[in-house]
Amino acid sequence: MGNENLEARLQRYFDRLWPIPRTLAGPGFRESLQILEEMVPFEWLHFPTGTQVFDWTIPLEWNVREAFIQGPDRVRRADFKVNNLYLVGYSAPFRGRLHLSELKKHLHTIPEIPQAIPYMTSYYKESWGFCLSHAEFEALPEGEYDVIVDTTLSVGTLVVGEAILPGETEREILISSYLCHPSMANNELSGPLVLAFLYERLSKITKHRCTFRFVIGPETIGTIAYLHERGEHLRNTLDAGYVLTCIGDRGPFTYKQTRSGNTLADRCAEEAVSHRSGSKVMPFFPNGSDERQYNSPGFKLPVGSLMRSPYNHYPEYHTSLDNKDVISFVHLAESVELCAEIALNLDRNVAWVSNIQQCEPFLSKYGVFPTSHSVRSIDDWKMAVLWLMNLSDGKNDLLDIAKKSGIPFALLHQTALKLEQAGLVRRAASLNKETP
Amino acid sequence: MGNENLEARLQRYFDRLWPIPRTLAGPGFRESLQILEEMVPFEWLHFPTGTQVFDWTIPLEWNVREAFIQGPDRVRRADFKVNNLYLVGYSAPFRGRLHLSELKKHLHTIPEIPQAIPYMTSYYKESWGFCLSHAEFEALPEGEYDVIVDTTLSVGTLVVGEAILPGETEREILISSYLCHPSMANNELSGPLVLAFLYERLSKITKHRCTFRFVIGPETIGTIAYLHERGEHLRNTLDAGYVLTCIGDRGPFTYKQTRSGNTLADRCAEEAVSHRSGSKVMPFFPNGSDERQYNSPGFKLPVGSLMRSPYNHYPEYHTSLDNKDVISFVHLAESVELCAEIALNLDRNVAWVSNIQQCEPFLSKYGVFPTSHSVRSIDDWKMAVLWLMNLSDGKNDLLDIAKKSGIPFALLHQTALKLEQAGLVRRAASLNKETP
Amino acid sequence: MGNENLEARLQRYFDRLWPIPRTLAGPGFRESLQILEEMVPFEWLHFPTGTQVFDWTIPLEWNVREAFIQGPDRVRRADFKVNNLYLVGYSAPFRGRLHLSELKKHLHTIPEIPQAIPYMTSYYKESWGFCLSHAEFEALPEGEYDVIVDTTLSVGTLVVGEAILPGETEREILISSYLCHPSMANNELSGPLVLAFLYERLSKITKHRCTFRFVIGPETIGTIAYLHERGEHLRNTLDAGYVLTCIGDRGPFTYKQTRSGNTLADRCAEEAVSHRSGSKVMPFFPNGSDERQYNSPGFKLPVGSLMRSPYNHYPEYHTSLDNKDVISFVHLAESVELCAEIALNLDRNVAWVSNIQQCEPFLSKYGVFPTSHSVRSIDDWKMAVLWLMNLSDGKNDLLDIAKKSGIPFALLHQTALKLEQAGLVRRAASLNKETP
Repeated sequence: MGNENLEARLQRYFDRLWPIPRTLAGPGFRESLQILEEMVPFEWLHFPTGTQVFDWTIPLEWNVREAFIQGPDRVRRADFKVNNLYLVGYSAPFRGRLHLSELKKHLHTIPEIPQAIPYMTSYYKESWGFCLSHAEFEALPEGEYDVIVDTTLSVGTLVVGEAILPGETEREILISSYLCHPSMANNELSGPLVLAFLYERLSKITKHRCTFRFVIGPETIGTIAYLHERGEHLRNTLDAGYVLTCIGDRGPFTYKQTRSGNTLADRCAEEAVSHRSGSKVMPFFPNGSDERQYNSPGFKLPVGSLMRSPYNHYPEYHTSLDNKDVISFVHLAESVELCAEIALNLDRNVAWVSNIQQCEPFLSKYGVFPTSHSVRSIDDWKMAVLWLMNLSDGKNDLLDIAKKSGIPFALLHQTALKLEQAGLVRRAASLNKETP
Repeated sequence: MGNENLEARLQRYFDRLWPIPRTLAGPGFRESLQILEEMVPFEWLHFPTGTQVFDWTIPLEWNVREAFIQGPDRVRRADFKVNNLYLVGYSAPFRGRLHLSELKKHLHTIPEIPQAIPYMTSYYKESWGFCLSHAEFEALPEGEYDVIVDTTLSVGTLVVGEAILPGETEREILISSYLCHPSMANNELSGPLVLAFLYERLSKITKHRCTFRFVIGPETIGTIAYLHERGEHLRNTLDAGYVLTCIGDRGPFTYKQTRSGNTLADRCAEEAVSHRSGSKVMPFFPNGSDERQYNSPGFKLPVGSLMRSPYNHYPEYHTSLDNKDVISFVHLAESVELCAEIALNLDRNVAWVSNIQQCEPFLSKYGVFPTSHSVRSIDDWKMAVLWLMNLSDGKNDLLDIAKKSGIPFALLHQTALKLEQAGLVRRAASLNKETP
Repeated sequence: MGNENLEARLQRYFDRLWPIPRTLAGPGFRESLQILEEMVPFEWLHFPTGTQVFDWTIPLEWNVREAFIQGPDRVRRADFKVNNLYLVGYSAPFRGRLHLSELKKHLHTIPEIPQAIPYMTSYYKESWGFCLSHAEFEALPEGEYDVIVDTTLSVGTLVVGEAILPGETEREILISSYLCHPSMANNELSGPLVLAFLYERLSKITKHRCTFRFVIGPETIGTIAYLHERGEHLRNTLDAGYVLTCIGDRGPFTYKQTRSGNTLADRCAEEAVSHRSGSKVMPFFPNGSDERQYNSPGFKLPVGSLMRSPYNHYPEYHTSLDNKDVISFVHLAESVELCAEIALNLDRNVAWVSNIQQCEPFLSKYGVFPTSHSVRSIDDWKMAVLWLMNLSDGKNDLLDIAKKSGIPFALLHQTALKLEQAGLVRRAASLNKETP
């Protein structure tokens, strides 16, 4: 089965990406992006460190040679080589000997989840620190500690990867994810993996109206840099977009709406998740991931967020416990399917016009309808025909009809194509309500 | 009591109409219409067979002399004379001898309801067939069968009956039902019966603003033919309309909305059924009865559907079990009342304007309000006065006020007339929000 | 604690106002208003008796010297000096001897609440009557009664008190209550007490954009007279207003909306009560108190009503049982707080504009945001910053942001001021959506 293959390939890529110490800018990010390039031919956008992007400045690259603490028993603890979460992200170089009581000012734990190493960063304030599980923290022997933080903060570039599948028109669908978190699974490797396999899937579609745009960079600063470069373009071309994040666990789907909550992106994602049991729709809120930047008031780009268990809604979030056990490759494969469905539905979401507007057509003569029938059984297909003929007045697009009828978009689309062949409907002049 | 009389008369007409073998076009339809003409002076619109009406063609007339099957035991089975549902509607003539195994290709049953003869038709594909209860079907002896389908399909006319009660204005209220089903009770004799008695009721009203239009023909093709003749007229004059169907059983009322769900027809029917316990409102869907044609995108006529248990929502639907046991003459009489109430409310739905707009009027001096009163008891009538005075600014019509206040339309209407007599309100220049 | 003092002062004023026999016009009203003037410098608007105000006429002043009935046992009963509810309000003078059976035509009781003396008036129809508890009524001995109703109905003036706290602009907030009920506590002393202490509270605010207007008169006729004088002015200047009534009992808050239900008055009151547990919002209805006049169609002033247990919703309403036991000075003090919060929120409800519209600001550099942080803990303050920056596009005012975010108005206001200091937001040119 195709999906077994998909699941196996997802797992293989996951295993290769997992150990790499990613951060905003530096070798870990680049190495990860190169692995994804086996599937997606990213163009690299380089933003030199120190560049101003809107209100922000591109930070220095961060590289870690080694980092650990070593107490009176000479045991290496919080060793970056063992788990890259031990070191606070962007820790500045430090080498010294501190008494435990002094060292503790630089140590971070989660007392309520004593086995978990928290994930922390200090991107924009020069400092250093270590994160330990609270169990490890409590077992630290008294005494003097050697602290080794052998890192560099150096000039270079921040990279954002961009790949485009051009369509027949310039109307765009954006898929965005981020790649700056070290070894954590649901947040964030799920997002880049689904994005890469979605690209692969869509690249096999030979003919599509919309242009598909894929973007992957470090969270927040990467998206701000990207919007500095492409924001005006997207304001003119973007029909809908989604941030993919936390989309690999076993929870049902969650869709977080765009700022206004009534865009094409919302209508399409809500239609698709409505047919998946347990799915939820959340209104926009300005905390979260890169949708914050896309939905800032100067852009108001129609970008929602596709997730399973949202950030902060699962206990392992932003800790060392967000590992391979939290995700499922079956669920990741299903996430690829959902995203492909949404992207293709957007591409197919046109308004049709019934060629017979006055009363119903006499369907039997078009070869699309059974003549002799028990009126007791009304099948889904017949209802799709009736809804399409009734609502196709050039004002309702397929998503409107899907919402009013409750019929899945795909069935409406297939039926519309058959009705088009039979001469019963034609495409409306304006393909898409949101197209200017 | 008047209603006892009404119930008895409903039953008498039901019993006369019941045995007649009705179909789209032919003697059964005409005979049935003639019986209803004892109450309603229908004008007959004749559509010659073969005429093109929009995408449809008027079918031939169908007449049955006799039809049955006779097996090795020489027993006549599925005899049209015993139950006119035995023969598939519009069966083409056939006479021959077939082995049971061959005959079975022409037999139809409902295995899940073994005592019920299904109702089937083949209007537009020339074929023949019989419907049996599954119990009868299973008891058929092996062997050769003589098959007699002595029918004719012949040129003639399809008839639609139309009756009009002219009002002071050309604004119209449409009441529509259909008369093409053979011996079934809730679907469809309930609809024509309620329509006819509603006509009788409204014809006694001497003065009404709106013109009431009553239409009865065969389902679907009759309405399509009628709209071919009257569609443009109705687009200019119709304020609201209703299809009456399945309106004689013991279930609570169901109102199926018009295509847009927010027309005058919807507002008035919803107000009326809201005061009947258990009533439901359904959004429009393009399956069902003649509302499909009225609500087609080329007409978008504001026609809803008044029912009790909707088609497909009661198990006897479209079988021989939809008989006199399924309906109740008490409930049919109540349906006449509801329809009369809706029609009259539509006629009375005007916008009033308070003559005293600034603060409340000093009601005592108008003789419409008690002077000395315990403030503890606020009766419905007082509330009707206050709502009318407060909301009558020429923008809210009585249906708006009924919706906002929860007060039944009839009480508001009566109160408004009293206030008009007292000089406290006047009619707004434009009588009706929907009037152009 | 300040509130202890507030509660004690509320109680002291309550005890002084309680015994005074108030009515529409006369010495009781004036004496009560003079007591409130110790806190509020009311200007007195005089309306001479007999003056026409819209559809109404200012009634005569009513004064009671004494009133009682005395039966065969020579016991004085229903003595106005003992409880001013015994006498029907505006009873015309009468002196005579009647047999009990004749007297009973002038007696009023509430059989269902046998201990309660009902509150009744006959303002506009000359008559006399007594109200008794049903227990007293049933104990009346048979025989002849002397009836003494020593009252006067005389020319004079009806008074409405008005006080204004001018703001930087002419946009107005109206606080309205009434002072015509004799010895009852929740309805009505709660309203005037909260109004007076609210005035005191707001008069200490040195700088406010809006002008606060306080009005107190007799119910209905007072407000009609006031609108005759000030209605046109208020149509041009009023942004929001509230009638205060039944606001001293132990129930949760109730807000009754304005006529349209979507005014600034509604948005602000609903936001404030939404953070008080158990609060309810009622749609407008044209029965009730002075909001009836403010919301009449000729004015449509955006005036809602702030209550705890609404009139008719507590059993003691309009009886002698609506006494000091029904109200609570703790709750009255809390009502003052709520009203002050609403008035100040209205004053502070401006639309802000983010100075950084494209992507989020880099908050760390503005000193309003922690740099190094565990992403796990998102505090209310951070969310207030993010919501303000995201929604401040000049179209959403603070009440919109409060509604969308669920964050209390006060926190948003304080945060907005900090962001303004940091240069991150500025005030929108038009301060208020409702300002013309």
